[in-house]
Amino acid sequence: MPREIHSFANDTVKRIRSLRDKKERKAEGKFLAEGLRILTEARDSGVLPMVIAYAPAGGVHPLAAEIIAAAEAKGADVIETTPDILAKMSGKDNPQAILGVYNQPPTELSAIDRGTAPLWLVAQALRDPGNLGTMLRTGDAVGAGGLILIDDCADPFSVEAVRASMGAIFTQKVATARWEDFVTWLRSEPGQLVGTSLNTQVNYLDATYDQPCFLLVGNESQGLPAMYEAECDCLVKIPMAGRADSLNAAIAAAVMAYQVKASWRNR
Amino acid sequence: MPREIHSFANDTVKRIRSLRDKKERKAEGKFLAEGLRILTEARDSGVLPMVIAYAPAGGVHPLAAEIIAAAEAKGADVIETTPDILAKMSGKDNPQAILGVYNQPPTELSAIDRGTAPLWLVAQALRDPGNLGTMLRTGDAVGAGGLILIDDCADPFSVEAVRASMGAIFTQKVATARWEDFVTWLRSEPGQLVGTSLNTQVNYLDATYDQPCFLLVGNESQGLPAMYEAECDCLVKIPMAGRADSLNAAIAAAVMAYQVKASWRNR
Repeated sequence: MPREIHSFANDTVKRIRSLRDKKERKAEGKFLAEGLRILTEARDSGVLPMVIAYAPAGGVHPLAAEIIAAAEAKGADVIETTPDILAKMSGKDNPQAILGVYNQPPTELSAIDRGTAPLWLVAQALRDPGNLGTMLRTGDAVGAGGLILIDDCADPFSVEAVRASMGAIFTQKVATARWEDFVTWLRSEPGQLVGTSLNTQVNYLDATYDQPCFLLVGNESQGLPAMYEAECDCLVKIPMAGRADSLNAAIAAAVMAYQVKASWRNR
Repeated sequence: MPREIHSFANDTVKRIRSLRDKKERKAEGKFLAEGLRILTEARDSGVLPMVIAYAPAGGVHPLAAEIIAAAEAKGADVIETTPDILAKMSGKDNPQAILGVYNQPPTELSAIDRGTAPLWLVAQALRDPGNLGTMLRTGDAVGAGGLILIDDCADPFSVEAVRASMGAIFTQKVATARWEDFVTWLRSEPGQLVGTSLNTQVNYLDATYDQPCFLLVGNESQGLPAMYEAECDCLVKIPMAGRADSLNAAIAAAVMAYQVKASWRNR
């Protein structure tokens, strides 16, 4: 049976709210996802929350009721509460009517089996959690296996990244690694490392992409370090017609990923 | 000569700050842009601010000094102030060291000359200002002429949209229009209306794109209304391999825009 919580001072409310903080997420090994669409994505990927909180005011969506029942059957802590308290937990003024607390999956490179997908996204020092979540969503749409995060990236389990991923945080593998460890892992099996750069004349439409392809995108303002570019098997440039000479990092990753996929179409 | 402002209660500080509000922006016909990169983009596009405010603490970048001098020569109100007051104006904890107040350009459809570019982006009910700004930035990179906003979109002159545009708000034309007026305008001269939709089997890689091409992307969660899809000369689908069956709206626009451009490559 759900338990009812009507106090902002409740310990569970505070614990859930604390997951908005990266240190707490790391210490607990958990993260927060909000909204029926994302919780449904999780359930459809075989993942149920450890804690589920919802506001029954205004009626519970049949899909939400299913997920609540499934989570409860698996021993989840099920909490009935008010929109105000949900807002406090999620830090949003207009909270979704449901949220879940999930275990963070392992993020070691060794958890990635590159043979399971022809394409993998790799982001270096990506600082914006919205960009990171958008890359996960794009990866899901384009049939990538997952996203590998190099150097100091935004936290893929932050509320903003999870939200922008629209549930792809549950369908895409996520790994974090130092550059040296990534290169060692990459070179231990076949795989082509493709970097997007302004320091090349190779048009991205002209390159040949192998499988599995690892698509490396650099930091939002700095691009890729020269050493990282030197490691790439193939550097390509997305032509820029305008004045600004740059694309948003998540946009560049998507344009590249769809072109890589298009190039394999008649294989 | 710059005038110095050191009071939060100063009228100019309050007036600049009020431009964070859409109603005020509309009433004043002005908007706010922050940061040297965006102000440089504006200057390089021939646009100077009416008011320019900067914090000389820590030194003024030579490029900033140039823009300040150029604006002053054109009669701009030049304000020397503190980082704290800049933060108050821009609403950011870590403000940029410089900001400008600009006149909003005209946004009537009649201000658009479709012959000046082969590609135009069209967004319907796009609600996220970050997506809107990112579409402007992508438009600049891909060589589009501008962005036409249909129905109730986010404000292209909001601080968030201007920031995400990375200066493309100054290089791309922006128009706002009701759907009926857009269609009348569109059909008054040659132009192909291409819609992105899930309700078609035509792969976006297989379609033929004419010039000028108007690329229509729908609302973030609803997609395009059926009536709007019916008006399109060509409906195409970006294949979705994953579970979530959707892309971020700005991502979809970018993947489409780069494919349209690629299809013209060997013309």
